[in-house]
Amino acid sequence: MRKEHFDQISCAVEALKEKETVNAVYFVACGGSQAVLMAGQYIFDKETNVPSHVYTANEFVYDTPASLNEHSLVISCSHSGNTPETVEATRMAREKGAMTIALSNAEGSELWNAAEYPVHYDWGKEVSDSDKNKGILYGLLFSLLMVLQPKEKWDVCLKELEKLTELSLMAKEQYREQSLRWAKENKREKIIYTIGSGINYGEVYSTAMCWFMEMQWIHSGCIHSGDYFHGPFEVTDYDVPFLLVKSIGNTRFLDQRVENFSTKFSNKMLILDQQDLPLEGVAEEAKPYLAAILSGVVIREFVEAIAFERGHSLDVRRYMWQMKY
Amino acid sequence: MRKEHFDQISCAVEALKEKETVNAVYFVACGGSQAVLMAGQYIFDKETNVPSHVYTANEFVYDTPASLNEHSLVISCSHSGNTPETVEATRMAREKGAMTIALSNAEGSELWNAAEYPVHYDWGKEVSDSDKNKGILYGLLFSLLMVLQPKEKWDVCLKELEKLTELSLMAKEQYREQSLRWAKENKREKIIYTIGSGINYGEVYSTAMCWFMEMQWIHSGCIHSGDYFHGPFEVTDYDVPFLLVKSIGNTRFLDQRVENFSTKFSNKMLILDQQDLPLEGVAEEAKPYLAAILSGVVIREFVEAIAFERGHSLDVRRYMWQMKY
Repeated sequence: MRKEHFDQISCAVEALKEKETVNAVYFVACGGSQAVLMAGQYIFDKETNVPSHVYTANEFVYDTPASLNEHSLVISCSHSGNTPETVEATRMAREKGAMTIALSNAEGSELWNAAEYPVHYDWGKEVSDSDKNKGILYGLLFSLLMVLQPKEKWDVCLKELEKLTELSLMAKEQYREQSLRWAKENKREKIIYTIGSGINYGEVYSTAMCWFMEMQWIHSGCIHSGDYFHGPFEVTDYDVPFLLVKSIGNTRFLDQRVENFSTKFSNKMLILDQQDLPLEGVAEEAKPYLAAILSGVVIREFVEAIAFERGHSLDVRRYMWQMKY
Repeated sequence: MRKEHFDQISCAVEALKEKETVNAVYFVACGGSQAVLMAGQYIFDKETNVPSHVYTANEFVYDTPASLNEHSLVISCSHSGNTPETVEATRMAREKGAMTIALSNAEGSELWNAAEYPVHYDWGKEVSDSDKNKGILYGLLFSLLMVLQPKEKWDVCLKELEKLTELSLMAKEQYREQSLRWAKENKREKIIYTIGSGINYGEVYSTAMCWFMEMQWIHSGCIHSGDYFHGPFEVTDYDVPFLLVKSIGNTRFLDQRVENFSTKFSNKMLILDQQDLPLEGVAEEAKPYLAAILSGVVIREFVEAIAFERGHSLDVRRYMWQMKY
């Protein structure tokens, strides 16, 4: 992690130490950024007694939770730093006295200025993965957790993030051939569902909403592995495609159950098992977190492959950024 | 509300009064039952300082939140009372010392026995809507809130629930013609998305997962109105159907924004505006709650109509209840 990013995170951590109490942590953003933050809520929920919640930013603004006050911590994220709803949410939270941390790729943006503790992340090729959005988010989370729920593992996890660049390259290489094959076999599909659980739910949410719907105009819906059997599974059929992220965390049983059932009835299951990821050299306690990030890297390979097969660039938009809405 | 139900709720309320503190409220269930409970989490989140969360039951079991303890309140729901994951979750919570309330249509079922405070609800025709699952849930919620966050409005809201039967009939009558027309126009559709926000999110979740996917094998995905513009909206096109529940609550602006945009590009928007519901005689503070319930009643009309047009009975299942999974 670059020193600049580390310093920005440290700033926020020092401020957190000053807070007598934290009554709640609110993760607030839109679309893909909201999805990225979902992992944060997951970790706080399973590892601390600090209540944590995720909101799409405009609901946070228009229907603000009763507990938001000067004891709250609000973490937001916007790549451009200009997402209006997220900027508004951060301003509103800061006005209410909450401690505001915002992640963005754009220093000096509206969000950057709205938050008390802005934290930058890099983007593009030739940058370290531990300096990209998820690397920085997890770095921030582990650092905050060292204050809120001190455990040795946070220090270990923070260090392990530095392996991300290398592991990402390995994972991409590992899945390249399969992704090209899958893309050829699924390029005519009109709908592809995503399924996942636990810390990976954010990833399958953004795969459905952003990768498929936004960037490919492929219909999609995301399904929680636990709820699959209580409704959604009835659409399963030989020709219905699903993308399942199979966790190595506590909810693996839920994902395994989905795999056991769905593979009997659908010929179009893409199962991305985190156990297959190149995590051998990673400390045990850090594996679920690195796996969550690497699953996103792997999914991107598949999406890039299908975009190529379909002649539909990931950059194409017909509405987003094209008009006011 | 029948005296039996009222007494069961009172039992739970009295027990709650004995609790020194409530550190969290967990709403735990599967599928449609989980969707019903989502409104509970919404209300607690906007009206109290008691942290509240929703879980699909199996994730609650396998990846239990750190804060679950003897100060917690766990509210679960299963129509049959036999949903294994929900029964397991309730047992586990009770073992941990949490106060467990469970809603079910089946007295003496596994869930009924697992919970410390079981509460029954009626089902079928010829029963009062205030005694059905949502009427009982809201009755329970308002009663618990009178203890946790006393406000005059809970008493008012509790009384207004008694108008549900009459208002449900009126709403069904009001929408019958439109539902039959919509069903004819949409019976060939392979996918119908659902969109909503605020207290209605649970309703659009269950419309997608249960009404469309489970009971009609129509592909679907539910989208939060706030997040629509951050990905999903890119699939909007003249022939893409959406069902939008337009709130009368604080998030109406979010839903209005969806309507303004989507109606420009899709010819297949079904917009169910809660402002059109027969709520004139209802007390102001109770309107958002009754509206949430009535939207579900209205949606059911549309689903029954399309089921008839498609020759696909709402009772048909190919997997659910047909095999082990």
